[in-house]
Amino acid sequence: MTTPRASALVTDILAALASDDVLTTPEDVAPYRSDAAGVPTERPPAVVVIPRTVEQVQAVARAATRHRVPLVVRGTGTGLSGAATAPADGIVLSTAGLASIEIHPGDQVAVVGPGAVTDHVDAAAREHGLMYAPDPASSRWSTIGGNISTNAGGLRCVKYGVTRDAVLALDVVLADGRLLRTGHRSVKGVTGLDLTALVVGSEGTLGIVVGATLRLVPAPARVRTLVVSTRSLAESGRAVDVVTGSGVRPSCVELLDRGTLENIDGHSGTDLVARHGNGLVLVRTDGPGADVEIETLAAALDAAGLRAELLDTAEGERYHELRRTGRGPVTDSWAAGEDVAVPRSQLVAMLAEIEAIAARHDLEVQAVAHAGDGNLHPGLLARRRDGETRPPARLEVALDELVRAALALGGTISGEHGIGTLKRGWLADELGAEQIALQRAVKAVFDPLGLLAPDSFLADAAAAVPTGSIVNGPLTEAGEDEALVAAGTVPA
Amino acid sequence: MTTPRASALVTDILAALASDDVLTTPEDVAPYRSDAAGVPTERPPAVVVIPRTVEQVQAVARAATRHRVPLVVRGTGTGLSGAATAPADGIVLSTAGLASIEIHPGDQVAVVGPGAVTDHVDAAAREHGLMYAPDPASSRWSTIGGNISTNAGGLRCVKYGVTRDAVLALDVVLADGRLLRTGHRSVKGVTGLDLTALVVGSEGTLGIVVGATLRLVPAPARVRTLVVSTRSLAESGRAVDVVTGSGVRPSCVELLDRGTLENIDGHSGTDLVARHGNGLVLVRTDGPGADVEIETLAAALDAAGLRAELLDTAEGERYHELRRTGRGPVTDSWAAGEDVAVPRSQLVAMLAEIEAIAARHDLEVQAVAHAGDGNLHPGLLARRRDGETRPPARLEVALDELVRAALALGGTISGEHGIGTLKRGWLADELGAEQIALQRAVKAVFDPLGLLAPDSFLADAAAAVPTGSIVNGPLTEAGEDEALVAAGTVPA
Repeated sequence: MTTPRASALVTDILAALASDDVLTTPEDVAPYRSDAAGVPTERPPAVVVIPRTVEQVQAVARAATRHRVPLVVRGTGTGLSGAATAPADGIVLSTAGLASIEIHPGDQVAVVGPGAVTDHVDAAAREHGLMYAPDPASSRWSTIGGNISTNAGGLRCVKYGVTRDAVLALDVVLADGRLLRTGHRSVKGVTGLDLTALVVGSEGTLGIVVGATLRLVPAPARVRTLVVSTRSLAESGRAVDVVTGSGVRPSCVELLDRGTLENIDGHSGTDLVARHGNGLVLVRTDGPGADVEIETLAAALDAAGLRAELLDTAEGERYHELRRTGRGPVTDSWAAGEDVAVPRSQLVAMLAEIEAIAARHDLEVQAVAHAGDGNLHPGLLARRRDGETRPPARLEVALDELVRAALALGGTISGEHGIGTLKRGWLADELGAEQIALQRAVKAVFDPLGLLAPDSFLADAAAAVPTGSIVNGPLTEAGEDEALVAAGTVPA
Repeated sequence: MTTPRASALVTDILAALASDDVLTTPEDVAPYRSDAAGVPTERPPAVVVIPRTVEQVQAVARAATRHRVPLVVRGTGTGLSGAATAPADGIVLSTAGLASIEIHPGDQVAVVGPGAVTDHVDAAAREHGLMYAPDPASSRWSTIGGNISTNAGGLRCVKYGVTRDAVLALDVVLADGRLLRTGHRSVKGVTGLDLTALVVGSEGTLGIVVGATLRLVPAPARVRTLVVSTRSLAESGRAVDVVTGSGVRPSCVELLDRGTLENIDGHSGTDLVARHGNGLVLVRTDGPGADVEIETLAAALDAAGLRAELLDTAEGERYHELRRTGRGPVTDSWAAGEDVAVPRSQLVAMLAEIEAIAARHDLEVQAVAHAGDGNLHPGLLARRRDGETRPPARLEVALDELVRAALALGGTISGEHGIGTLKRGWLADELGAEQIALQRAVKAVFDPLGLLAPDSFLADAAAAVPTGSIVNGPLTEAGEDEALVAAGTVPA
């Protein structure tokens, strides 16, 4: 299985890294073959490396360049777009050895390695009365490097912005091993083209992020929570509209449909359906104005004839945590998750489209949404029949219709999970061929040999990893990020 | 003066634009030769065009490409970095004819032309209870296109972020006339490389922005203001530290030194020096928590032994407006303004550096700062002596020392005004030659012939416009943006 090229590559790498940090056996590399989307390449990677220093990352990049071997960066593998899928016969570079965290309270910044876990950064900041605001649902396991790779969002970003808004500076190792330092430690800075902003969200196609300077904000001393119980998705959508139009800037506006409530009840032993009916909208406010804001929201919802209930602190935390990690894996159905986003005014229309598509194809829906951002995570489920070994074609058709419905409503094919290897098929529908050509040319400036994430969203048709998120692999849990990691299938 | 090439160029342009929108006489093009920095090229532009449609912009770009003529985009000319300096024998493209403003309250976005004046966008948003947050001090005159070009900041960005954080999507005409559409109308979206974020702050080097979709936020119903009177710059810096460390997120933290207070008193008939002494820190809070927040800040300042005074609404507005537009032009001195930014913890150190530099070179200081961001606008002044026809060399030396002091403190050479043609000399000190080469290669992807803003920050040494902001032109008002536009020297 070890080709001469792979052998020479590994020899080069071993000149710079400790042998324990260089994995080559089939059983050692197997856990790194795919990310949480679960679609691996046919052949495993040649080697998994776990560098401990920036210099070691540079040595690995130089080895990749010397041997013309593809390289994919991987955090904890919680990604859902196949961006961290191992390149066949290539290198997986794990950031697990680069997880340092320094908090500089005077500058209100954190300086971290890419392997630092998101929640660990936030926890370190809280010791100084500060907060790292972006909070993807996977923040307990996900890494800052992965968050930067996808420009991760989360629940709080409706108020605090997404990962890009929090990244002030980056250290990036290019494919040829050079170290590029972008950005600034000051809050503001406009010197030159903003390569920091460009690298955020580039999913490992431009370089290997080896360090990040992150903006912190004062941690809110007070958080308030309310829940709205609704009779239908349409009524949930109306509640979101009332919240959006209230003049208040909430720190969280999450929508959970009946299917999701049933899932949580089954998995977490709660009675959400009995208490809330067909749907739930979870709204939080934070900061010194939290009380005034939550009361303003409750009054607006009441005036609109909607049933809002203020929660105490403990209950508020419990609902928030149920939204984040309360769902369990789906075992009796084939499931596919999505990550589209639409303009705010189209949220209700998109929810109606999802219901119509599911009905048309005899599917069930489990939908959650970062509703304040118009970012939806609908899961489509097809009951698994006896003896069925692969998902039914109608699930694939429905998913395609769902993504196209989002585009037709002025939306985007990915709100926060990224394109990776799995959504390439829709990329041209959103960007057009001319813009894709331009983006490929930009990538070529950074990575002229095309070694970094070569199968990812800027790949041409010959990419080793097939596109399409339904027909090509085990999809039971795709899109169910919280469920997946809660179930322990993600290496932590 | 009209060369055959210029004549053929104008003929091409006149095939697409009305003759009233194509200016070629010396007196017609003269007002467009330089921006507010006041350093023109030796030869005027061949033509100034005022397109009324995107198609006309495309026609102008095609003409520029066909005739290999440089092109610079210009809004209202309030820029301070020479980015809108007319290219010799080239094209100035004014965005004055592309000033449409549409507000979409349901999506909380504005869709605007590049020539829309910043305050006009904000005013239109306010009719729907919304706000366009970025507010450069020149917002009464500056355009959205110019704001995008420099990634403009402002007073509120300490809470609400800079222009990049507000731009969701762009329409960009490339040098060859193609129309590129980037971004999304949804709040979130991560499809492909983020060319929107890359174009913001690119100062016209990548393409011609012809349309923008801007994020709006709920307009705060309540704004509160306090002022801190201080005895020294160091005490002002301490007040800023107290505010930053308070846990509150203020919407404005501005520092004005004694020189600035004297200037405002002389120009606006106020008695700020008598009332406040050697310095003033202006702090505002907004939104539903404004009252709690301002009281928290006042208590923290009081506990630190600082003299804070809460203002009523009218007084708060008056001080805010004095900060923005209260300064007058400096007539008895040579003056040079700066725009450096440093990490927050280095603000006091940077203020001390500025005082030391001024003392060393027998200069006066008039400094304002967006202090919550660490972004300083110090003006250095050399008393003008009888018969002196150009600024003294010591002013140039001092300015260079000031910029390098900011870099030495971990800061940046430009917080929000941009590099343009005038700060090229320090670019390599911040970015290094390798990164500049990479940035030039990125520009070449968008503009392979190098026609857009060819003298700007990515120019090579042969640029037609000289770099350096002291020795090469009339500097009396450089950096004094509010004063300059208030004095009416900027075409509106």
